[in-house]
Amino acid sequence: MIVLGIDPGLTRCGLGVVESHGSQRLEMVEVGIIRTDVDAPLSERLLQLDREISIWIARVKPDVIAVERVFSQLNVKTAMATGQAAGVALLLAAKSGIPVVMHTPSEVKAAVTGSGRADKKQVALMVQKLLQLDSIPKPVDTTDALALAICHHWRGAGDSKMQLALKKEKARLVARGKKTNVGAAAS
Amino acid sequence: MIVLGIDPGLTRCGLGVVESHGSQRLEMVEVGIIRTDVDAPLSERLLQLDREISIWIARVKPDVIAVERVFSQLNVKTAMATGQAAGVALLLAAKSGIPVVMHTPSEVKAAVTGSGRADKKQVALMVQKLLQLDSIPKPVDTTDALALAICHHWRGAGDSKMQLALKKEKARLVARGKKTNVGAAAS
Repeated sequence: MIVLGIDPGLTRCGLGVVESHGSQRLEMVEVGIIRTDVDAPLSERLLQLDREISIWIARVKPDVIAVERVFSQLNVKTAMATGQAAGVALLLAAKSGIPVVMHTPSEVKAAVTGSGRADKKQVALMVQKLLQLDSIPKPVDTTDALALAICHHWRGAGDSKMQLALKKEKARLVARGKKTNVGAAAS
Repeated sequence: MIVLGIDPGLTRCGLGVVESHGSQRLEMVEVGIIRTDVDAPLSERLLQLDREISIWIARVKPDVIAVERVFSQLNVKTAMATGQAAGVALLLAAKSGIPVVMHTPSEVKAAVTGSGRADKKQVALMVQKLLQLDSIPKPVDTTDALALAICHHWRGAGDSKMQLALKKEKARLVARGKKTNVGAAAS
């Protein structure tokens, strides 16, 4: 299985491709970054991101696309830009008919280091180790994208499906006016 | 000139089309709303938005697309969703080669009511008056989209170009290490 991990950003968007061989062995296929001009109009920056991610998808032919879900620890302006970059990736995945899954930064950290509160350096070191790389890819957006792809190989989409199912069940019960604790474990 | 105003949102995205006849008279061509299912995966919601806005663009053939620039008074989660919806609109405009301009809510309010701090009801009343409508279109996202289109007819893209030019000049001077007040009036 080939996973394309995308660490969304308008100024720097990290992309990392990881393929699994058997149940455990993971191999880095490709890693890179898309940069857009901060002085260009927003629509042009999104268009550039759209075009370049399209080229990655066509070349890599991923089975799954994993996008980082970022919504905390950011100011609103950064959140908008990150949201837009993530939106471009999600939309392209949907148009290509490729399953797309979002993982939070703490899920990614926990998957590759065992701790959801690991720092960037620790994540980068584990990415290097797990993929048996000679050096740590730079800048950090690229290791984040690889970590995301590794995370997806190990966690899969199970959690997201579970959360969706719990959310629907919760909504159904709330609509009926019943008090419930369903979904408390997933939130 | 035909302007398509888009009040971006994932749950409700307002669209309003306003055509100018001569220098002052404005006419509403069409108004509507796109809703996406809050329980659907984010990628599917963005895809639906993408498809439906595409249909609007193909049908309306706007000369300009005006998108609301929202980045304050929102929490980070809402900002992400609004940013993604706005991103879809900006990307479609760029792909279609249609000029796209963003206006802030206070620019829109000031354009239609004379005050940047007008409330929603005041904006809706002025939209009804300026477009000579029998009643106020509902929900509020639709009047916001119409107000945005009116704002663009009156303000044009001049301010945005001015801001971009000032921003570039400021960056150039800062890069040279000079202290400057360029752009202070535009920020």
